[in-house]
Amino acid sequence: MPDQIPEDSVGLVTPQRAHFDAPLQLASGRTLPEFELVYETYGTLNADRTNAVLVCHALSGNHHAAGYHSMEDRKPGWWDLCIGPGKPIDTNRFFVVAPNNLGGCHGSTGPNSQNPATGRFYGPDFPMVTTRDWMHAQARLADRLGIERFAAVAGGSLGGMQALQWAVDLPERIAHAVVIAAAPKLSAQNIAFNEVARQAILRDPEFHGGRYLELGSYPKHGLSLARMVGHITYLSDDAMGQKFGRELRNPELTYDYNHQFQVESYLHYQGDVFSERFDANTYLLMTRALDYFDIAKEYDNDLTQAMAQARCKFLLVSFTTDWRFSPARSEEMVQALIAAGRNLSYARIEAAQGHDAFLLSIPRYSELLRSYFTRIAARLPASA
Amino acid sequence: MPDQIPEDSVGLVTPQRAHFDAPLQLASGRTLPEFELVYETYGTLNADRTNAVLVCHALSGNHHAAGYHSMEDRKPGWWDLCIGPGKPIDTNRFFVVAPNNLGGCHGSTGPNSQNPATGRFYGPDFPMVTTRDWMHAQARLADRLGIERFAAVAGGSLGGMQALQWAVDLPERIAHAVVIAAAPKLSAQNIAFNEVARQAILRDPEFHGGRYLELGSYPKHGLSLARMVGHITYLSDDAMGQKFGRELRNPELTYDYNHQFQVESYLHYQGDVFSERFDANTYLLMTRALDYFDIAKEYDNDLTQAMAQARCKFLLVSFTTDWRFSPARSEEMVQALIAAGRNLSYARIEAAQGHDAFLLSIPRYSELLRSYFTRIAARLPASA
Repeated sequence: MPDQIPEDSVGLVTPQRAHFDAPLQLASGRTLPEFELVYETYGTLNADRTNAVLVCHALSGNHHAAGYHSMEDRKPGWWDLCIGPGKPIDTNRFFVVAPNNLGGCHGSTGPNSQNPATGRFYGPDFPMVTTRDWMHAQARLADRLGIERFAAVAGGSLGGMQALQWAVDLPERIAHAVVIAAAPKLSAQNIAFNEVARQAILRDPEFHGGRYLELGSYPKHGLSLARMVGHITYLSDDAMGQKFGRELRNPELTYDYNHQFQVESYLHYQGDVFSERFDANTYLLMTRALDYFDIAKEYDNDLTQAMAQARCKFLLVSFTTDWRFSPARSEEMVQALIAAGRNLSYARIEAAQGHDAFLLSIPRYSELLRSYFTRIAARLPASA
Repeated sequence: MPDQIPEDSVGLVTPQRAHFDAPLQLASGRTLPEFELVYETYGTLNADRTNAVLVCHALSGNHHAAGYHSMEDRKPGWWDLCIGPGKPIDTNRFFVVAPNNLGGCHGSTGPNSQNPATGRFYGPDFPMVTTRDWMHAQARLADRLGIERFAAVAGGSLGGMQALQWAVDLPERIAHAVVIAAAPKLSAQNIAFNEVARQAILRDPEFHGGRYLELGSYPKHGLSLARMVGHITYLSDDAMGQKFGRELRNPELTYDYNHQFQVESYLHYQGDVFSERFDANTYLLMTRALDYFDIAKEYDNDLTQAMAQARCKFLLVSFTTDWRFSPARSEEMVQALIAAGRNLSYARIEAAQGHDAFLLSIPRYSELLRSYFTRIAARLPASA
């Protein structure tokens, strides 16, 4: 619980819901007959509706990007460091929209929602979704809110891929794309890690082909294991080394398989907490959306041609020790943007924390975002 | 099947067994009342018994290091590229000894052996073993074979750690240590990956606390998953990318969780094959032996002081794209050896294959081993 809500916080926030009756055609060829998005907003939409920023979440994120849900909340939203009055995405200037993605497990229509066709949980019948599907659903929300064009679409990791999808697919609807710690597509190694995570879930006997909710069971072990392997890829080797090294929980080796090294306990804790707050079917969906993301695929695998579709300005950010989506992956995009003659800024931020850095307090990174968003704000109409 | 056994092969080989009646005191404080080692030898021990080379296997290896077990064998031993007449470890000059480690699952006493105290499989009651325990068991085998001092102890990865253990613990019994793609101890990230692999096994309901053999079950899913995650760490990101990229098995995405990318099929294949030839309890033991390895621990965590115990000469080898035990880890040892005034050679080999490189045909690596072992051979008595 925050003893007192900090002054630069957006404060107490209440998630909102938007229901969409018109069917949504998905990349898979399937159709979602109707759907709902849960989302939060921070700040005020200006009179000419030009100051909206869409914040897209990563694999395990949700719509709660900033502020607190109650005075009992121990932790604010996932990007609270960045969103708030006077913060880099300054809610005194911007109107921030943060939805939970379709297929999610925190309120938007997903595997844990009721399938209107059967009256049962969707479970494994929920259709596979892609970053493009998310973009279309987010665009519907923008329509509902009266936002024709976002001042910026921003996100890290899978969130950055959504910003990129907006830039390429809906070029007239976005003024700036802020693409942090992302990649134009996954590498074989990225896919391999995702597949291990999925198999941990699929092979858990409590998974029951995805119908665990109906059966009152839950693949907790598998989901926790999936998170453990994912978590290793979020941290740099050095960060893990500095955090835990080979420290033992007790001074003596016990010659068994109980957690003896601090890093083991940490991983178990991360896995357990995650398995209690997240849904296994959603985890499968999100990792597959990552695997499928490939922005150049429809452009003869020519990233420059893909980037040439964009009309917005770009800020790309990478972190030196990120080995999940390394600086080299961001620099592929930078090269393509340069070749396509786009307007871009790029920063490779010195940071020890690995991929996780995009969520953390790193002064140069915060300053960079602040200065970029200040420039965006400066060009908004005075009414903003 | 080799249509014909190649001329530079050691040919058909038959594993041998050595039984040891005297109890073996283990690092854990427990005692193994008796044990057996299965091993292979190639070449001939010279009259003054000075040309013996001990080859230590890595996590998933065994005593079958070279040659073929039968004319039906499709693959030779795991280091056949390196061991044979005219090969880098030239069996015309050297007598090579390759044991299966204690706790293994290919013939040496391990979890699948009968516990003399109960008449049942050891299973989870088999004591935890360390590289030092392996060294002591190997030293017993050397005694049995009449080898007082090895011309060299050599191995890659966990095998290299055993060579290091010999150099430090039994300095009078080893003339050269060949330490390939190893590290003086595991990093937090290394331990984290091992823990994920162990949890995949421990959480498989077919594991039954390690008593699966007695119960006629087998944790195939868990062991296969453990191997999948391990395998990712054996290959470099680039090697995986070059081998598989994002290639699809079929031209169209299927929007489901079946294997669609080649890298997924490959991982599954590796996991399945491994789970059929390896034992889950042994996998747990071997990963724990890795976690526990820390050559400097007893020397106030001072690697130089540890290395100062050695009397042998050293060859250290690392591979540029190995991210499991990176060149930096070998170079820690090089620095300590220099500081300790030891005689050493070191090569960082340019190789795209990652950690797996130590098992592969890489001309500069083969030439290096050849030249090093030629120098060793040149100093053997003429009778060799």
